[in-house]
Amino acid sequence: MSQYQAPLRDMKFQIEEVLDFPAHYARFAQGQEASPDIVEAILDGAAQFAENVLAPLDAVGDEHGCQWQDGEVTTPPGFKDAYQEYIANGWTSLAMPVELGGQGLPASLAGFCMEICTTANHAWTMYPGLSLGGIHTINAHASEDIKARYLPKLVAGTWSATMCLTEAHCGSDLGLLRTKAVPVEDGMYAISGSKIFISSGEHDLTENIVHIVLARLPDAPPGIKGISLFLVPKFMVDAQGNVGERNQVRCGSIEHKMGIHGNATCVINFDGAKGYLISEPHKGMSAMFTFINESRMGVAQQGLAQMEASHQNALRYAHERVQFRGTKRENPEAAADPIIVHPDIRRMLFTQKAFIEGGRALSYFLAMQTDLERYSESAADKEQADALLSLLTPIAKGFLSEVSIEATSYGIQILGGHGYIREWGQEQHFRDARITSIYEGTSGIQGLDLLGRKILASGGKALEPFVKLVLGFCQENPESAYTPIVQKQIQEWIALTRELGAKAMQDADEVNSAAYEYLMYSGYTVLAWIWAQAAVVADKALAGETADRDFYQGKLNTARFYFERLLPRTLALAAGIRAGVGTLPPFPKAE
Amino acid sequence: MSQYQAPLRDMKFQIEEVLDFPAHYARFAQGQEASPDIVEAILDGAAQFAENVLAPLDAVGDEHGCQWQDGEVTTPPGFKDAYQEYIANGWTSLAMPVELGGQGLPASLAGFCMEICTTANHAWTMYPGLSLGGIHTINAHASEDIKARYLPKLVAGTWSATMCLTEAHCGSDLGLLRTKAVPVEDGMYAISGSKIFISSGEHDLTENIVHIVLARLPDAPPGIKGISLFLVPKFMVDAQGNVGERNQVRCGSIEHKMGIHGNATCVINFDGAKGYLISEPHKGMSAMFTFINESRMGVAQQGLAQMEASHQNALRYAHERVQFRGTKRENPEAAADPIIVHPDIRRMLFTQKAFIEGGRALSYFLAMQTDLERYSESAADKEQADALLSLLTPIAKGFLSEVSIEATSYGIQILGGHGYIREWGQEQHFRDARITSIYEGTSGIQGLDLLGRKILASGGKALEPFVKLVLGFCQENPESAYTPIVQKQIQEWIALTRELGAKAMQDADEVNSAAYEYLMYSGYTVLAWIWAQAAVVADKALAGETADRDFYQGKLNTARFYFERLLPRTLALAAGIRAGVGTLPPFPKAE
Repeated sequence: MSQYQAPLRDMKFQIEEVLDFPAHYARFAQGQEASPDIVEAILDGAAQFAENVLAPLDAVGDEHGCQWQDGEVTTPPGFKDAYQEYIANGWTSLAMPVELGGQGLPASLAGFCMEICTTANHAWTMYPGLSLGGIHTINAHASEDIKARYLPKLVAGTWSATMCLTEAHCGSDLGLLRTKAVPVEDGMYAISGSKIFISSGEHDLTENIVHIVLARLPDAPPGIKGISLFLVPKFMVDAQGNVGERNQVRCGSIEHKMGIHGNATCVINFDGAKGYLISEPHKGMSAMFTFINESRMGVAQQGLAQMEASHQNALRYAHERVQFRGTKRENPEAAADPIIVHPDIRRMLFTQKAFIEGGRALSYFLAMQTDLERYSESAADKEQADALLSLLTPIAKGFLSEVSIEATSYGIQILGGHGYIREWGQEQHFRDARITSIYEGTSGIQGLDLLGRKILASGGKALEPFVKLVLGFCQENPESAYTPIVQKQIQEWIALTRELGAKAMQDADEVNSAAYEYLMYSGYTVLAWIWAQAAVVADKALAGETADRDFYQGKLNTARFYFERLLPRTLALAAGIRAGVGTLPPFPKAE
Repeated sequence: MSQYQAPLRDMKFQIEEVLDFPAHYARFAQGQEASPDIVEAILDGAAQFAENVLAPLDAVGDEHGCQWQDGEVTTPPGFKDAYQEYIANGWTSLAMPVELGGQGLPASLAGFCMEICTTANHAWTMYPGLSLGGIHTINAHASEDIKARYLPKLVAGTWSATMCLTEAHCGSDLGLLRTKAVPVEDGMYAISGSKIFISSGEHDLTENIVHIVLARLPDAPPGIKGISLFLVPKFMVDAQGNVGERNQVRCGSIEHKMGIHGNATCVINFDGAKGYLISEPHKGMSAMFTFINESRMGVAQQGLAQMEASHQNALRYAHERVQFRGTKRENPEAAADPIIVHPDIRRMLFTQKAFIEGGRALSYFLAMQTDLERYSESAADKEQADALLSLLTPIAKGFLSEVSIEATSYGIQILGGHGYIREWGQEQHFRDARITSIYEGTSGIQGLDLLGRKILASGGKALEPFVKLVLGFCQENPESAYTPIVQKQIQEWIALTRELGAKAMQDADEVNSAAYEYLMYSGYTVLAWIWAQAAVVADKALAGETADRDFYQGKLNTARFYFERLLPRTLALAAGIRAGVGTLPPFPKAE
């Protein structure tokens, strides 16, 4: 039932009107190819592919799932053809460096395209999506010889990559991992161990699969400081980059999951598989964070994508379905009015819209920082971008994944009983969205990363670049109705953070107690800044000539809804945070 | 993976220590058989059946679903045997009047047993569950002849009942319904039309299925005031109550749903099917509310049940799974501590526990009112019970179903990636729970029923009996730490209601705008009273001799958690309510 249409108008609003990517792209070499015309053409192309090829396969993937037999995985019908078309049209190489065979466009632009594809088909897009992180990890950490042999085919998409972290006994706590790497001939290592929950771990879309694997060297210290990073191919690769003999890495089974059925979640068994060390010994976690951070941004985008897909269906239904009369009759000839006349239906639609468009703006702001971190020649720009990414990545990942549960749940609720029926597609979005607050670090882990590892560990300094940015916006826009609210919200965020810092000195458990609610509080605070910006832009547009009055009025309406009906959730979150760890004593045993 | 154990200790706490059912049962004839020993024996019996027979079939039902072929429906493997055992042991007739072949025990006791069975297997328990409402509807509204022919086998469980309301074009808005009933010979009617979403509409568990159907007589006025109620059997029944020829009512298909796969959700086609009018002409909606109100209480119980089942698995996992060190080491010999040492895990467990035990208390309070409404000889008791049920049923149904989404989502989150894998069972609870805020009236409809139809339509009088009860509790327990909070909460609820009443006079859409958040606000307020009561009882128990210190301390801990970390959500809800319909202008069209 999906009739996905890429939200090009809102994308353009964020790209051109709020964030001024055209000026941003003019500042560095990789951006200069990305003129507004080129950007528009590329987004149109991505939209066509996603709408026509990927979206129809979303329900197919859910229905058929992946099939495992004797270690081989067959993806759902149509997935392979779609992948061939995707790589033939160069989508995997869009933002890859020219010297690796890429097209040299900015990473942000590839990110916008990934959002479009993910919204059409989350499970499918994970196959090429994971390769991106793999390519960047190899490019950042591996030797020139490995890069020369592996990157061209990964960039072209004829091979794909995975990230192998989790083992059955260790998920969040990677310090416990047991997979071993023993040096063998030719500078290679024999990798032995079993990894679980490996997305895209085995499939039939590419000629080869390159596993990026965490394992321990024989002399490794215990815990997280004894982990190294390895590249382990499914098929060995010769000096010319050609595929050779089968390596001893096999898919032992695939999981039966609640959602994202179209993506194979694999048990991957390494049985003395040959691999290459691609980090300094025992420094594998730090190298793997290249992959992890990119994946977290991708998951934030998946949360956004599921909300958008669900909202499009819900909005269409709300206009078509007639049920009851509104207080003002919209449809006097018919037996009832479209349900969009009922304020409670609009409450749910506005909630979705506020999270989607706010989340998109946050995602694009982060994409801009990623560009700067990668391409800028200014050390100050890079440093600031790095600081903003470090602070905002856990917020974007944690917050957008959490609100995607609520927003896709509303996508069901608006359809009533039909929302619970598979053929209507809405329950799939709810099921698919539910993974996003779990994988790549649960929301609890994101909260700890944000509050503990970043903000409190830096004595609050991690907040400064972002706070400065927001207060700068407030100074520049004193006339905006939302400026005082944003200022107050930022001050309360800082005050709450200070309180938490003081309490954490007394009892370290205060951090864990507050982490989740602090993460959500931070998300609502960041979105306040974002919606204030959108309102300023919309106000300006409406003050002039525009053919798009409904669009800008919609922005103002959603901003108002956000500030009056969603931002007050921070009151409850602050109360929960302040209640502290005293409210979380040992939990009684089961009877 | 389910290892369900009926929560008999907490049930006993609510039944004996908080609500004093023994004294309640002593007050009327049907209760006098229900001595504490009998109650305990019956609950033990229900627990054994549910734990040993129903719980193992929960995942089976999810995996296999129901199969439709040529109008016949086959339930999942094992469902039929379990049903045979259930009726053979007299569970369906427990609280039915003796004159109908029942055992004459109080309705509340049967309700406790239904909770136990629903927690073990929601989809299965819907088959006998729906019959209860059908029996009461027939008993309250049908002729003596119909009662004599239909009730004995329904009471014995050899037949089952359904409720047929929804049609493809009308769900919430039953005024639109089109199914027709034309008088034919022998005082019968020919029913023609198509109903959808009929739970347990067709199956292989019973010899006959008795459909309770809303339809229009030829001379019916349009809208909701032209609907009559009919009994339409699958097989015709002779004067002796024996099954005869097949009636023209057939199952056209069954739905593919997100959850409750074990229960057949049917399209039921009536093709001139013979039926009996069982209400006054055109007064069918009012008669059907006997069924609807009973079903809504059942759905509240389903929300509670899904939370309990999810919590039991999550709590077991939190004790077994080791990951990271706590700030205080619990498990120094092992590589890591059980995750229950982490406060964020306990935050999720306490949230579940607060909703489950609070919801159970509310459910049992309503069960007590149902007993009084049915059995009391005091008109004043009946009137008060009726008023309390009228106010609290939409709150129980709406609130418990909504929080069951959050609580079962935490049930997934606590298990991390394993929570997303089918074999662990947690994702089924999340999927099964999701129907509860949709069927038997969505949460939006419950909110409108509560705020519009009940509270504002009565000029606020509908709140009075409940408010009086709560203020009485506060007066009797001035020393409790929570008494002032409950008092303040009640006052703010009343103030908010008054404000809404005034605003609704200006703009009727204010009711629809506020309805959902008001419903949730009311739920949190009611649970504040409930947790304050639990704390008073626990305080008393701990002041004396008890072997159960951990149990009572757990109650106090959960009460504190509720008041400090959950009740503050009313701050955000109140802000949303007060924002008003001005924040919900016409929603912009899609691009």
